[in-house]
Amino acid sequence: MKPLLAATAGPEVAAGVGPFAGLYRLASGGYLAASADGVGTKIKVAIALGRHHGIGVDLVNHCVNDIATTRAKPLFLLDYFACGTLQEEVFSEVLAGMADACTAAGCALLGGETAEMPGMYALGDYDLAGFIVGLVAEGDLPDLKSVRAGDLLVGLPSSGLHTNGFSLVRKVFHEFPAELLEPHRSYQRELASLPWKAAAHITGGGIPGNLARALPPGLDYRLERGAWQVPGIFGEIQERGRVSDEEMFGTFNMGIGMILVVDRALVPPGSLVIGEVVAE
Amino acid sequence: MKPLLAATAGPEVAAGVGPFAGLYRLASGGYLAASADGVGTKIKVAIALGRHHGIGVDLVNHCVNDIATTRAKPLFLLDYFACGTLQEEVFSEVLAGMADACTAAGCALLGGETAEMPGMYALGDYDLAGFIVGLVAEGDLPDLKSVRAGDLLVGLPSSGLHTNGFSLVRKVFHEFPAELLEPHRSYQRELASLPWKAAAHITGGGIPGNLARALPPGLDYRLERGAWQVPGIFGEIQERGRVSDEEMFGTFNMGIGMILVVDRALVPPGSLVIGEVVAE
Repeated sequence: MKPLLAATAGPEVAAGVGPFAGLYRLASGGYLAASADGVGTKIKVAIALGRHHGIGVDLVNHCVNDIATTRAKPLFLLDYFACGTLQEEVFSEVLAGMADACTAAGCALLGGETAEMPGMYALGDYDLAGFIVGLVAEGDLPDLKSVRAGDLLVGLPSSGLHTNGFSLVRKVFHEFPAELLEPHRSYQRELASLPWKAAAHITGGGIPGNLARALPPGLDYRLERGAWQVPGIFGEIQERGRVSDEEMFGTFNMGIGMILVVDRALVPPGSLVIGEVVAE
Repeated sequence: MKPLLAATAGPEVAAGVGPFAGLYRLASGGYLAASADGVGTKIKVAIALGRHHGIGVDLVNHCVNDIATTRAKPLFLLDYFACGTLQEEVFSEVLAGMADACTAAGCALLGGETAEMPGMYALGDYDLAGFIVGLVAEGDLPDLKSVRAGDLLVGLPSSGLHTNGFSLVRKVFHEFPAELLEPHRSYQRELASLPWKAAAHITGGGIPGNLARALPPGLDYRLERGAWQVPGIFGEIQERGRVSDEEMFGTFNMGIGMILVVDRALVPPGSLVIGEVVAE
């Protein structure tokens, strides 16, 4: 996939500034940061429970967090909502969730596409994708070259499962507890106030699937799994499904939704330090 | 939907410059033009015929044409590809189509999201959405206030059905002719060279669903349906499905993929004039 994308890219496309957003340099200065995201099969749980507002929040905050790893401030978001036949009340709930989260993030909900595709989606099913664009000054971009062995990993707590691991969740529960739908929270404020060098948004693939790719080549990390208390919902999933620790950590965020790489000397008191950067 | 979107919008969001793209004013000057689009159930026909490259082209050109109605030049595109289980060869074909069309449009394929959602999509099914961002200088934005009764409508021929009307098409044909998959063409070059005041991209809803909303309030249009030859594929659909003229024109582009509003004195020789702007 990467060679095909690269073939379309001019010199305006920045490479290597992080895996969570694409960066495009404007001739007038600064970079646009953009990301496309979905919500995955969390939608199936929302449909089963008849609660859709949080799905809209999930989508927006997933997008906002992705571009926040480049220090971009969100400008606007567009959505794609697809279904077999539009159910107005479901769509309205999703839209209200998106609008609420956009307002909270200072992001305009600029438009979107609503598609009815009979024969593609079963009655009551829908899919949702979001596309966000933010702006970051060149001098504000994270400088991955500044990351060193010995830097500490500061974990920011998640608000729940966020949007990952729901295919496994759906096998494990007969009845879904409402807690599963707790929306993906935004890390915008914490990322704006902490002195971090690199940020990993813990989404699909969990910590192992996201932290390593946020570090520059030659560096790895050591995690102290005992440094934080894994929220009970993950224990319940693990127990019900008899899931191994490795699969749990490779599927879920396990209570840590964002990890920041911070100079050891600059870690604020009270931070949740969950590991450190080490030489590979 | 509009009040919810408006509540999220700051003064950077421009209103009333056309229905095919959202406009966001950059502090550094100029506007970002953005649009989200899907391909609809044309995907079902592509799946039936096992041909997917054109679907990628369709998506990109639909997006490119939408923002071209604001005179924006495309900067980059992101895609969302969702399926039950990823079929590498199908995805590769779609991706190659997107990359080819992006290269032709001078648009970077900046990234995207690929989602496997078992239980949401049947085996072999997929959905595809695209999100494009372009840039336009403030002085280049179409000035709808300049549109007057007496301006002429110049039609640009479509390359086929583009991506609309496929739910009807799927009821009409037992076996799909490959002609149905002819990709949506790009009007980028024509829009850059013609002296137009307003542009209507003829997508879902056909000419009646798109031309009126591209005109300023107080103005309507008169179409000369005999001014162009409707391509045979539309006649075949109409005959097989015993579809009324009104439904055909309200569903398909009928051979006209883009309509430009041009000052009568500036219409280049050889243009296909298909009607005129009239007072409401």
